[in-house]
Amino acid sequence: MPAYATNMRFKFPILALILEAVTIVLYAVFVVYDTGDAHGGGHHADQNNTHPTTPMTLYPMFQDVHVMIFIGFGFLMTFLKRYGFSSVGVNLLLAAFGLQWGLLLQNIWHLHDGKIRVSIDRMINADFSTATVLISFGAVLGKTSPVQLLIMTLLEITIFCINEHVVVEILGVSDVGASMTIHAFGAYFGLSVARVLYRPGLRNGHDKDGSVYHSDLFAMIGTVFLWMFWPSFNSAIADPGDAQLRAVINTYFSLAACTLAAYATSSLVEKKGKLDMVHIQNATLAGGVAVGTCADMDIQPFGAMLIGTTAGIISTVGFKFLTPILASKLGIQDTCGVHNLHGMPGILGGLAGIVAAALNKKNGVSAAHQAGGLASSLGFALVGGLITGLIMKIPFLGQPPDQNCFDDSIFWEVPEEEEETEERLTHGDFSQNKAEA
Amino acid sequence: MPAYATNMRFKFPILALILEAVTIVLYAVFVVYDTGDAHGGGHHADQNNTHPTTPMTLYPMFQDVHVMIFIGFGFLMTFLKRYGFSSVGVNLLLAAFGLQWGLLLQNIWHLHDGKIRVSIDRMINADFSTATVLISFGAVLGKTSPVQLLIMTLLEITIFCINEHVVVEILGVSDVGASMTIHAFGAYFGLSVARVLYRPGLRNGHDKDGSVYHSDLFAMIGTVFLWMFWPSFNSAIADPGDAQLRAVINTYFSLAACTLAAYATSSLVEKKGKLDMVHIQNATLAGGVAVGTCADMDIQPFGAMLIGTTAGIISTVGFKFLTPILASKLGIQDTCGVHNLHGMPGILGGLAGIVAAALNKKNGVSAAHQAGGLASSLGFALVGGLITGLIMKIPFLGQPPDQNCFDDSIFWEVPEEEEETEERLTHGDFSQNKAEA
Amino acid sequence: MPAYATNMRFKFPILALILEAVTIVLYAVFVVYDTGDAHGGGHHADQNNTHPTTPMTLYPMFQDVHVMIFIGFGFLMTFLKRYGFSSVGVNLLLAAFGLQWGLLLQNIWHLHDGKIRVSIDRMINADFSTATVLISFGAVLGKTSPVQLLIMTLLEITIFCINEHVVVEILGVSDVGASMTIHAFGAYFGLSVARVLYRPGLRNGHDKDGSVYHSDLFAMIGTVFLWMFWPSFNSAIADPGDAQLRAVINTYFSLAACTLAAYATSSLVEKKGKLDMVHIQNATLAGGVAVGTCADMDIQPFGAMLIGTTAGIISTVGFKFLTPILASKLGIQDTCGVHNLHGMPGILGGLAGIVAAALNKKNGVSAAHQAGGLASSLGFALVGGLITGLIMKIPFLGQPPDQNCFDDSIFWEVPEEEEETEERLTHGDFSQNKAEA
Repeated sequence: MPAYATNMRFKFPILALILEAVTIVLYAVFVVYDTGDAHGGGHHADQNNTHPTTPMTLYPMFQDVHVMIFIGFGFLMTFLKRYGFSSVGVNLLLAAFGLQWGLLLQNIWHLHDGKIRVSIDRMINADFSTATVLISFGAVLGKTSPVQLLIMTLLEITIFCINEHVVVEILGVSDVGASMTIHAFGAYFGLSVARVLYRPGLRNGHDKDGSVYHSDLFAMIGTVFLWMFWPSFNSAIADPGDAQLRAVINTYFSLAACTLAAYATSSLVEKKGKLDMVHIQNATLAGGVAVGTCADMDIQPFGAMLIGTTAGIISTVGFKFLTPILASKLGIQDTCGVHNLHGMPGILGGLAGIVAAALNKKNGVSAAHQAGGLASSLGFALVGGLITGLIMKIPFLGQPPDQNCFDDSIFWEVPEEEEETEERLTHGDFSQNKAEA
Repeated sequence: MPAYATNMRFKFPILALILEAVTIVLYAVFVVYDTGDAHGGGHHADQNNTHPTTPMTLYPMFQDVHVMIFIGFGFLMTFLKRYGFSSVGVNLLLAAFGLQWGLLLQNIWHLHDGKIRVSIDRMINADFSTATVLISFGAVLGKTSPVQLLIMTLLEITIFCINEHVVVEILGVSDVGASMTIHAFGAYFGLSVARVLYRPGLRNGHDKDGSVYHSDLFAMIGTVFLWMFWPSFNSAIADPGDAQLRAVINTYFSLAACTLAAYATSSLVEKKGKLDMVHIQNATLAGGVAVGTCADMDIQPFGAMLIGTTAGIISTVGFKFLTPILASKLGIQDTCGVHNLHGMPGILGGLAGIVAAALNKKNGVSAAHQAGGLASSLGFALVGGLITGLIMKIPFLGQPPDQNCFDDSIFWEVPEEEEETEERLTHGDFSQNKAEA
Repeated sequence: MPAYATNMRFKFPILALILEAVTIVLYAVFVVYDTGDAHGGGHHADQNNTHPTTPMTLYPMFQDVHVMIFIGFGFLMTFLKRYGFSSVGVNLLLAAFGLQWGLLLQNIWHLHDGKIRVSIDRMINADFSTATVLISFGAVLGKTSPVQLLIMTLLEITIFCINEHVVVEILGVSDVGASMTIHAFGAYFGLSVARVLYRPGLRNGHDKDGSVYHSDLFAMIGTVFLWMFWPSFNSAIADPGDAQLRAVINTYFSLAACTLAAYATSSLVEKKGKLDMVHIQNATLAGGVAVGTCADMDIQPFGAMLIGTTAGIISTVGFKFLTPILASKLGIQDTCGVHNLHGMPGILGGLAGIVAAALNKKNGVSAAHQAGGLASSLGFALVGGLITGLIMKIPFLGQPPDQNCFDDSIFWEVPEEEEETEERLTHGDFSQNKAEA
């Protein structure tokens, strides 16, 4: 790959500005406020219960989800020692574009008088659509350029919206916390891309593919915000009233139980019984993923806790034993282990939903359709990821060479002084003082 | 103490899994959703005013409290240079178990048809119950194993629930922000445990019992989130309407005044007039603790500010002069200085509540009963902490030896490279480059 | 300047305690709760629509704004390598005093029965008033003492309240997100102060006037929280219902578009096409500032996106090309580049408001009055900043000498060990091991 390909000047700004310009034109044509004057009674209809709603009722929920997208995902990925700028910075970039694109694509199916009417509800869904990309980003973290990732965002959200339409609108599947349509989809899409972008040169690891003490603490900011606000993620678009309350409660208890399971398993699989930060940062969240599909169903708190416990164990075991095998045997180098946090727990969530449907835990939900929703999500993810990966592989798009992976300095200005200090620490050269350096 | 005792493999996972399994069984028997179909009109009755409520009305308040518990307490304790994983990680573990246990124990007194019905209100109280443990955790931070701490969580929340029942249900004490039942209780419980676990070997300090520049900044994340959301803590379970508004306003002003007092006192007690991060991280919060008991009373904003100012001064002076004396004279080694942030301000809050009751600042509240509530909380804390400390002292539970205190690496996998670098910095050995190391 | 002037002992505590004491006395005289019993129907009247409100309706919005003030502004300024304690700590101090002072001064114009009645709405506005000071703080960051800054807070908030009264009450200007009255005002006030405090000795830069890797990540905590909650900032005091919804939606899309524009421009202006953290930390937020004035107007989402895109470009270009010129030609040393984040985008917001008024995008708003509001804000800022700067220049107030600028250690106790380590790294002295040091 020619060295200049990673120079982002022109190709990145031009792509970003074209995408934004096209988006603005489409918004000028299609997007209006969902205010009362746009169309009589445009607000979220609340026909099934008696709880009063206003246009702003869901706003606190929206802000919780917003924090998960931008702080949660962004900081979760800062665990790498020299890739924090990209983690939190590119996360912001992709989500900022993704929410604009997602809002368009999600609502193009149901125009009202030729218009998309934006409400808080639509903004929550737009934020949700970006989560798929941020999950996939985790699989290829450190090995892709901003140009590649903007293209991935464009394609993945488009494919996500098609699958979501098929699953939710056509099949009538219930997936309130999106275990299938977001988590499993985002994970297997990302793993599919990672497979296409397989790098034999990283088989023996990479110097910078790991954490330092403080980067692990930054990552915990992401973990804890995701953990805390996951009840909002799983309940934000639930029916107001009892269903929403169930979604909050189930997620709360699933996560709590998952946390104990993840800690216990982490200690159990390590020779000296120590806890591993990778497990704590990720597997404690698997309970939120796995309870997603049936969060609003009548599974009772102890049912949620059983799902959470299972997810915590599976996820931790996956990090310890499965991730290395995926890399060595299948050529899937999954930087953040999204397979363990979103992939397997997402499938578990889908399966739990099938069982819950079979047990009649929610009216009007069919086990067969639930299974169809899971299959559709996995199918779209794997095929979509494959095609997207092939497009991302075009050399011109600036994929970094192996030696520059996991390193912000290829796409970011990095503070000089610390670089020097680091270099000195690395090379043991302390003979010059700073003024001379 | 035999070296192997600190190996957590088996003993920690087994304890954690047993606790979770027992909890799930108890939930299967006792815990259901507080939905309309569980029992006619199960929702929070709002008979005293006209403000409409839904099952989700308190949800934003709950999330604020949730952030205080998991980000606030978790990051506040990351000030130690090499104990951040334990601070934020074990905080998550203890709170995740504690909220499950607390919800059971708090509601076992008032079953409806043999069931506990979970609502947002109950979740807030469950989160509250964990705060006692997290406060006590601060007193013994760096000197205890995860096994010891899980046992402390189990016992302390149990004792807390008994005291809370006595104080609130039997004595009819008003303690909306829980100055007495959470803050003073948690602090004196922790100090009592710390006394039992006294370590003569740490009399002359410990290399790792201090901060570095960045760890102090991580701690400020905790401080600021606690500071901002304290009005939610003190008002979450207040009566809707005017009482809740008063609780928010009083806490807002108490904290603001406390902050100026803490900064002023910090500068005053230092020889060169410099500010001390320990004071800023902690004493700025004392106003939230101290105004807790009478937060919903009619003490007026200036009354809240007087309480906050007093708390800020007392707390800072405590850090500077009292903590060293407690350690050297009484054998109470209080790592985070919880006596200054939660202990004395909690007692101040209890006393302010007695005075406010005597001045008729809230209907139906008696000064004598308020005094009884304070005495009960202190009594349960000291005796409960003593017993709990004695149990925690059993050598098998893995208390770390003195030289491994305040150091994550005894219970956590810590990133290798940085460890090496630190070692080199410590030993002045820079002759080898990294590849050789 | 005599060395002892920077010793804050006595002068800082005395000033802080006097300010707090005076404030408490004024509160005792003037400030009461806005509860139903204070005066019949004191609550926020909601005459224009049918959305039910309670005293707590705005509380989640308030907390979002609160997070912006204390986490957002506080951490945004931690980008400097050795000035994080001051950034987040002094931010807390100034905002804590500022909100008390602002609430008094903002409401002294409309007493009810001689009283100021505190509601959530009033608390939001009090928080807003502190934003002006925190913006100005950014211009003089690293070059001022806590005593100087407390005095600046006192004066700036007083002047802000006068200008706000003129603009909003007398001229009837619409400025819901305060592009003019907070952002432009705060920026030009701060630049005016910075001009007066010009330091020729810093013309060639300063060793500590820059970031290190982790300090840039801390700053991103501030950036992302500001970014996420800006819709709350711009909508918090909008009329409930459609206007508030429009303010949220416009800000959401303006920021998203601004982010792509800022990233594109950052890459475009750097020779190697790399992204610059300074731009990402700041220019991504310019869309929130610029859409402020017309956030609640009927400009449609694409209109908001055009404003955001423009702001992102202008702001990034300003950081790259204008800030150095301001410093070298005009003697305005703007540490955080507030001119680019708040100054120019604030003016852009004011201009957009004039255009929107001319196009009748909001009933009852006049283009001429909008222009008057912008002129008034700039005038009060420049003259007020000039006078305030002259007062702050009094040597007794402890302005640090050039060599101690951008360094916490002049006003804070800084952890010793790391200081030593840093010293060693700087001077290449690793011959002694830590035990000897």
